[in-house]
Amino acid sequence: MKAYVFHAPGRSAWEEVPDPGLDGPGDAIVRVDTVTICGTDLHIRKGDVPAVRPGRVLGHEAVGEIVEVGRGVRTVRPGDRVLVSCVSPCGRCRYCREGAYGQCLGGGGWVLGHTVDGTQAEYVRVPFADLSLHPLPSTVTDRDAVLLADIFPTAYEVGVLNGRVGPGDTVVVVGAGPVGLAAIATARLLSPERVIAVDVAEARLEAARDFGADAVADAREDPGQLVADLTGGLGADTAVEAVGLPETFELCTRVVRPGGHVANMGVHGGPATLHLEDLWIRNLTVTTGLVDTRTTPTLLRMAAADRLPTGPMVTHTFPLDRMEEAYDVFANAARTGALKVVLGEPRREIVAT
Amino acid sequence: MKAYVFHAPGRSAWEEVPDPGLDGPGDAIVRVDTVTICGTDLHIRKGDVPAVRPGRVLGHEAVGEIVEVGRGVRTVRPGDRVLVSCVSPCGRCRYCREGAYGQCLGGGGWVLGHTVDGTQAEYVRVPFADLSLHPLPSTVTDRDAVLLADIFPTAYEVGVLNGRVGPGDTVVVVGAGPVGLAAIATARLLSPERVIAVDVAEARLEAARDFGADAVADAREDPGQLVADLTGGLGADTAVEAVGLPETFELCTRVVRPGGHVANMGVHGGPATLHLEDLWIRNLTVTTGLVDTRTTPTLLRMAAADRLPTGPMVTHTFPLDRMEEAYDVFANAARTGALKVVLGEPRREIVAT
Amino acid sequence: MKAYVFHAPGRSAWEEVPDPGLDGPGDAIVRVDTVTICGTDLHIRKGDVPAVRPGRVLGHEAVGEIVEVGRGVRTVRPGDRVLVSCVSPCGRCRYCREGAYGQCLGGGGWVLGHTVDGTQAEYVRVPFADLSLHPLPSTVTDRDAVLLADIFPTAYEVGVLNGRVGPGDTVVVVGAGPVGLAAIATARLLSPERVIAVDVAEARLEAARDFGADAVADAREDPGQLVADLTGGLGADTAVEAVGLPETFELCTRVVRPGGHVANMGVHGGPATLHLEDLWIRNLTVTTGLVDTRTTPTLLRMAAADRLPTGPMVTHTFPLDRMEEAYDVFANAARTGALKVVLGEPRREIVAT
Amino acid sequence: MKAYVFHAPGRSAWEEVPDPGLDGPGDAIVRVDTVTICGTDLHIRKGDVPAVRPGRVLGHEAVGEIVEVGRGVRTVRPGDRVLVSCVSPCGRCRYCREGAYGQCLGGGGWVLGHTVDGTQAEYVRVPFADLSLHPLPSTVTDRDAVLLADIFPTAYEVGVLNGRVGPGDTVVVVGAGPVGLAAIATARLLSPERVIAVDVAEARLEAARDFGADAVADAREDPGQLVADLTGGLGADTAVEAVGLPETFELCTRVVRPGGHVANMGVHGGPATLHLEDLWIRNLTVTTGLVDTRTTPTLLRMAAADRLPTGPMVTHTFPLDRMEEAYDVFANAARTGALKVVLGEPRREIVAT
Repeated sequence: MKAYVFHAPGRSAWEEVPDPGLDGPGDAIVRVDTVTICGTDLHIRKGDVPAVRPGRVLGHEAVGEIVEVGRGVRTVRPGDRVLVSCVSPCGRCRYCREGAYGQCLGGGGWVLGHTVDGTQAEYVRVPFADLSLHPLPSTVTDRDAVLLADIFPTAYEVGVLNGRVGPGDTVVVVGAGPVGLAAIATARLLSPERVIAVDVAEARLEAARDFGADAVADAREDPGQLVADLTGGLGADTAVEAVGLPETFELCTRVVRPGGHVANMGVHGGPATLHLEDLWIRNLTVTTGLVDTRTTPTLLRMAAADRLPTGPMVTHTFPLDRMEEAYDVFANAARTGALKVVLGEPRREIVAT
Repeated sequence: MKAYVFHAPGRSAWEEVPDPGLDGPGDAIVRVDTVTICGTDLHIRKGDVPAVRPGRVLGHEAVGEIVEVGRGVRTVRPGDRVLVSCVSPCGRCRYCREGAYGQCLGGGGWVLGHTVDGTQAEYVRVPFADLSLHPLPSTVTDRDAVLLADIFPTAYEVGVLNGRVGPGDTVVVVGAGPVGLAAIATARLLSPERVIAVDVAEARLEAARDFGADAVADAREDPGQLVADLTGGLGADTAVEAVGLPETFELCTRVVRPGGHVANMGVHGGPATLHLEDLWIRNLTVTTGLVDTRTTPTLLRMAAADRLPTGPMVTHTFPLDRMEEAYDVFANAARTGALKVVLGEPRREIVAT
Repeated sequence: MKAYVFHAPGRSAWEEVPDPGLDGPGDAIVRVDTVTICGTDLHIRKGDVPAVRPGRVLGHEAVGEIVEVGRGVRTVRPGDRVLVSCVSPCGRCRYCREGAYGQCLGGGGWVLGHTVDGTQAEYVRVPFADLSLHPLPSTVTDRDAVLLADIFPTAYEVGVLNGRVGPGDTVVVVGAGPVGLAAIATARLLSPERVIAVDVAEARLEAARDFGADAVADAREDPGQLVADLTGGLGADTAVEAVGLPETFELCTRVVRPGGHVANMGVHGGPATLHLEDLWIRNLTVTTGLVDTRTTPTLLRMAAADRLPTGPMVTHTFPLDRMEEAYDVFANAARTGALKVVLGEPRREIVAT
Repeated sequence: MKAYVFHAPGRSAWEEVPDPGLDGPGDAIVRVDTVTICGTDLHIRKGDVPAVRPGRVLGHEAVGEIVEVGRGVRTVRPGDRVLVSCVSPCGRCRYCREGAYGQCLGGGGWVLGHTVDGTQAEYVRVPFADLSLHPLPSTVTDRDAVLLADIFPTAYEVGVLNGRVGPGDTVVVVGAGPVGLAAIATARLLSPERVIAVDVAEARLEAARDFGADAVADAREDPGQLVADLTGGLGADTAVEAVGLPETFELCTRVVRPGGHVANMGVHGGPATLHLEDLWIRNLTVTTGLVDTRTTPTLLRMAAADRLPTGPMVTHTFPLDRMEEAYDVFANAARTGALKVVLGEPRREIVAT
């Protein structure tokens, strides 16, 4: 089959590799119909993630059809149209028992396109298939479903739920890239009074409005003042960090009210400063986290009922064999306006009715 | 009457001042029987807390008897023996309605010995008396009760409850001063598997054992290794910061397991570094907070039932008029071995039976 | 002034009574602009609530303007346009400190039109004014605001929050009277997958659809089957009882899935049967409750931001002096189609913009 | 091998049956060293549980050694000394993903000695071995461990945690049989102010004191009065039902304070009356539930650290082949004073040190 293989920093290619086969009783083989590229894949391609070894097939998000399952697989079977989730939980360890799948100690967690071959391929072997694959309701398109492989559960769990968003709240989302936009959309599910988006790119702030932001602020023009103005000087209930830089994290800690929550979603490459000289007294809660995908079944049910506002997230589509081009479009989002790029031959583009 | 008055950095004195009088319908006047000194008072005396103006009577912890109440006071009356809590909540603002008394927006919060005259005096005017004064059960001694004015609710709310301590957990308490020791004692109420105390002073680590620590570690000798050894390499469920320095805060973030909690109790004078490059993926929760004293009634009930292990916390006692000497003993704890110093003429030293 | 006075079972009248005056430092006098009638008032008028003594002015919901306050009132003042809430919390007792205002032990709770004179009058004395009166944002009309005196917080707290409604859930609301309809509307704030309304009156089921129900069922035609069909046989996550009869309560316990919640809102005059022989094993949670009104500030904020769907709840309006007629229209809802009847001269009928 | 086989109501026998073998890749075969009898087994033996078919080997609690595992088993292996838990979760279904193992929809849940052959045998096949078997720390004796197969997690999860027991609370446990006693012991882990035990048997009330009850009451002598006296007339925070009769359930609903919790643990054969005419206004929470065993790893860790007070629960021991006699002693507890009877040849009777 063909797959997108990492060879060295800056050197990856769509090329012929052996077909994957079952490796254990809990595995499944999935034919990939639709796949997308994550910001993390860009880091991997540049060589920033040393755990990814040369020869690795990349990708951790897909929609496809099961072609084969191991003897121990109980809940899915060949022919099922499924979502391949970015996290593959062992289901047995201390963390998995609590639904903290992203912290799996039993050989799972985020493994696809990381420590085992991933989804940017014609076929993929998925370990722990019972918990990693989610049968898709017929009313969910491939294009919506693939957004639930990573960015929507990440935004909902790590941003919205960790941030304790609730009815009547003021929520600030710093960073209006794909995950930030998904945080805006899923925050809306809990009826905050307002969502304020902060970014430096005008186009992204426009996208934020499309996804449901009530107000937007340029990060360079004192967003704290806007937040103060809108909240009677009190500050936001929740700030969601969706960038991964020290300054955006610190901005989040400044704009929340006493008793507020800062939910970090960004992937950080360096430390941030926590101004405890101000914050020790402010009853602040800061959370970090990798997605667990424990809410994926709920999000899928909502998508099937047309209650999950996935918005205009997919900006570009390509056939699978134009993977390199798709990476380039996604990597140059400032120029191309890309949010999510989707590849493949989706089997379901129009909602069945 | 006599009171301990702040005049300037380094200049405070036990001296004659006018008696306090009622200033509003919610006030009460309390005759102070027992009072103690807080670490914060040491900072104030040095001039580190600019909100404290010259002429201010210091102190925010006391036990005494009510001598007069305003017309609007409903739940206490002259003759009642009461605890004077360190926080005086207005009871009406958004924060007070949620029990977040420490963040009071209605003129209350921590005001005694801060923005109004305090308890290190023969008499004190207490605002918002209904919520600031707690009638004392007869089975609680003055000496135990005064510990519930600040350090025990601080340790329990900001350390133990914010830190989500529960049965079977491993809890690390960094800093074995009075508040750290109270955190050890109150963590025990929730049956953790073990409590590990970390400090640099041998005497404090011995005290930690007296208060219920199962293991102790010298902060200079890699306490992270001890924690790892005791938890199968996983890390602690909760780390409580009870010092107020960047390095102890950072130690806390290092010793907790993925999914763990860091509960900051320390008063910090400068920022700390949050190593988000490691922590973003670890599902960490960091909390800060000022005590709300919302658990004070519960703690009092437990003390009355002899279920609150207040331990050998009071190391020195003085009459009120030796305030200056008491401050010096408390300020030189490393030499004197002081934990809490108590002043006054306690009316109830022996538990009624 | 004029007021609606209960004299004996079946005998009440709109008649001249003395003007109310301040009785304590926490009181306020409010000029009533808008008032409504509660189902409970109908019970009182019939004599079903013995605590209501002859001579009592009825009513516990209103909007008006403050004309006088006691010396101890701190957060509102004469001239303020306010919501008079159905619960008047003392703010000092054990329950009030936890926000459980409806269980107040300090002389408050539901007192207006119950143990003290109420709001169906030209003026009303409101005890504990700081916590009982809520200043109204200018963008909230009297007609919307008066719905927040009782039915909306009741539906939201006792139905939706006690019932733990969340995104993706299936919610059944049994009884589509005013409080049931408010439960449908406020359940929607938390993005359930679907809300199913059950009633016996066709008109009420139509109203349920207007308030956001996705499906409706006639209570006499096996609503359990509809719930099973819509949930793959599993049952609902939450059932809200909004009638007050044994059979509707028992229906609720039958339609929820294992692990589900039954939130009782109905006022019951007799016992129900709890089928523990089936339910002991089903991880059921049943809650009961009187409204605390602790969410009223949040609901008001949402109403001001036009985010609270109050729906077509007010079906009839009258001037104050046609109180008797308004009672009759409300008492004969099956014939008149009344949901809520509103009386008075609302000062703000059109939203300021 | 030999096993205890149910043939018909009133007819069961210790007799020769075929050895069990692996039936799926997730199974394990365990050699039974220690086993006990549950109250439920008595019901089954009488024929009260129709799901148990003739020929079924009874028993759902054991300690033993693994002798064989299927290909899909990952976390345990032959030679491991393990606890056989009463619940065998599939680990894949909606309920298992949330830790609600007792409600498993995937073929698991309580199956041993119910729908598949159980543990009262020399060997047992255990399905879903990864989640059903718990490796035993060397410091836990067989006799303590076997109590964690059912009664301790039941008491802790269904009684104490569902009942929201916390520091300073008053807890009433109605029924001082084995599970009630375990509820008293595990409630103590959360430092309630007091635990009050209610029963009709003097011997059981004495046992309740041994397990940590602070006060005891004869069920026939108005225990509500004792609770009122001890709580200043308010009532208990939590009442745990550990009998399974309508009158004991109704007693629980009477003795809790407004805002309190009734946690039902009893297995009921008929309905109870819920006095909603009194309770609708009292903010009551009633929970029911089957054990999930999600806390078993925590309880085992605490037992290993000698922090789980299992008390004098095992009153009688027998070799495996005197199963019939053990059943008789257990069935006649009033005469024999039996709490738990244990059978087998425990491999670890003395704690390693």
